[in-house]
Amino acid sequence: MIVDAAVRCFYQHGYDGSSVRDIAQEAGVTPAALYHYYSSKQNLLVDIIARFMASSIDKTEAALRRAGPDPVARLFAAAQAHVLWNASDVASSFIVNSEIRSLEPAHREQNIAQRDRLQRLFDACVEEGCAEGVFTAPWPLEASRAVVVMCTFVARWYRESGPLSPEEIAWRYGHMALSLVGATRGPRFEPPTYESESVNAP
Amino acid sequence: MIVDAAVRCFYQHGYDGSSVRDIAQEAGVTPAALYHYYSSKQNLLVDIIARFMASSIDKTEAALRRAGPDPVARLFAAAQAHVLWNASDVASSFIVNSEIRSLEPAHREQNIAQRDRLQRLFDACVEEGCAEGVFTAPWPLEASRAVVVMCTFVARWYRESGPLSPEEIAWRYGHMALSLVGATRGPRFEPPTYESESVNAP
Repeated sequence: MIVDAAVRCFYQHGYDGSSVRDIAQEAGVTPAALYHYYSSKQNLLVDIIARFMASSIDKTEAALRRAGPDPVARLFAAAQAHVLWNASDVASSFIVNSEIRSLEPAHREQNIAQRDRLQRLFDACVEEGCAEGVFTAPWPLEASRAVVVMCTFVARWYRESGPLSPEEIAWRYGHMALSLVGATRGPRFEPPTYESESVNAP
Repeated sequence: MIVDAAVRCFYQHGYDGSSVRDIAQEAGVTPAALYHYYSSKQNLLVDIIARFMASSIDKTEAALRRAGPDPVARLFAAAQAHVLWNASDVASSFIVNSEIRSLEPAHREQNIAQRDRLQRLFDACVEEGCAEGVFTAPWPLEASRAVVVMCTFVARWYRESGPLSPEEIAWRYGHMALSLVGATRGPRFEPPTYESESVNAP
């Protein structure tokens, strides 16, 4: 598929380092055939970035819906979803997070709007948690941004050959996100721990 | 200076998107003059990345030396230093963190060694803190990696025109790093709080 070939080229050589001819060759089509589907290299980049961002938003919103009203469960779910999505396509994640520079001004504005929308989903979680007193972060929006950044950039080091599955990494990052915002408890769905006299007391 | 021109070119267009001719033009010299100082474009990239990484390590080590033996103070200082260094040169930070792909194999190995060395400085802090019981992170090395990532990628959004100074951002990230590793207290140099009977008891 042409878009997959473009992802491979941009991932390896960058946008300015990849010509339409390179992408067509990688896709096994002629440049003319490529132009039949995409009027320009810019449109290919816009397609890759806008779709990836739209899915980032969709997946985060779906996770939030499933999580219900508890801010702890919401942030935990959103962070997990964001890790899973970025780890699922490290090449596109890389392009989305390194080729904003190559978007023409109108497309860059659309991209900023999508990024803001994604960030606000996390911001709302963190602010709700702070308002309810279950998060204690002194700078909620800084913490929220750091959560998105650390989850996004899992794609920079995650490889399928690594020791942990994406699900295990996402689980850990869900907990680390809660730690980062100073959560006073874990998600409610975790099994409760019972104090017992047989457990060694402090 | 030629290296500054190369940073501007690689930052804007990527390594494969910048020719020696582009860099020479940006530097206001002839390609022949450029080749007098750098035998290849690859050597320019190696120089930019290796120097930035060496300074990352130096600045972190210096911060650790100043911080003394307390793991809380050490992680706080290391995170701050890493934010300040990356915010001080967002263009080089971007290149260092997006053009590993463009390093030839031998240079890539050197780069991985430098990255590992930097990461281990943070890992040692976090492991010391866990051993002393002042950090409670269930996955110390994951938390340590997340600290480095969130501090490194401050360079992706920090701009001089923003509302916060680099020092203020670094201060917040120092605290967020402690939060991320589940620190049970702040750095010791913070003013102690005294319980008093006049304060409302629980």
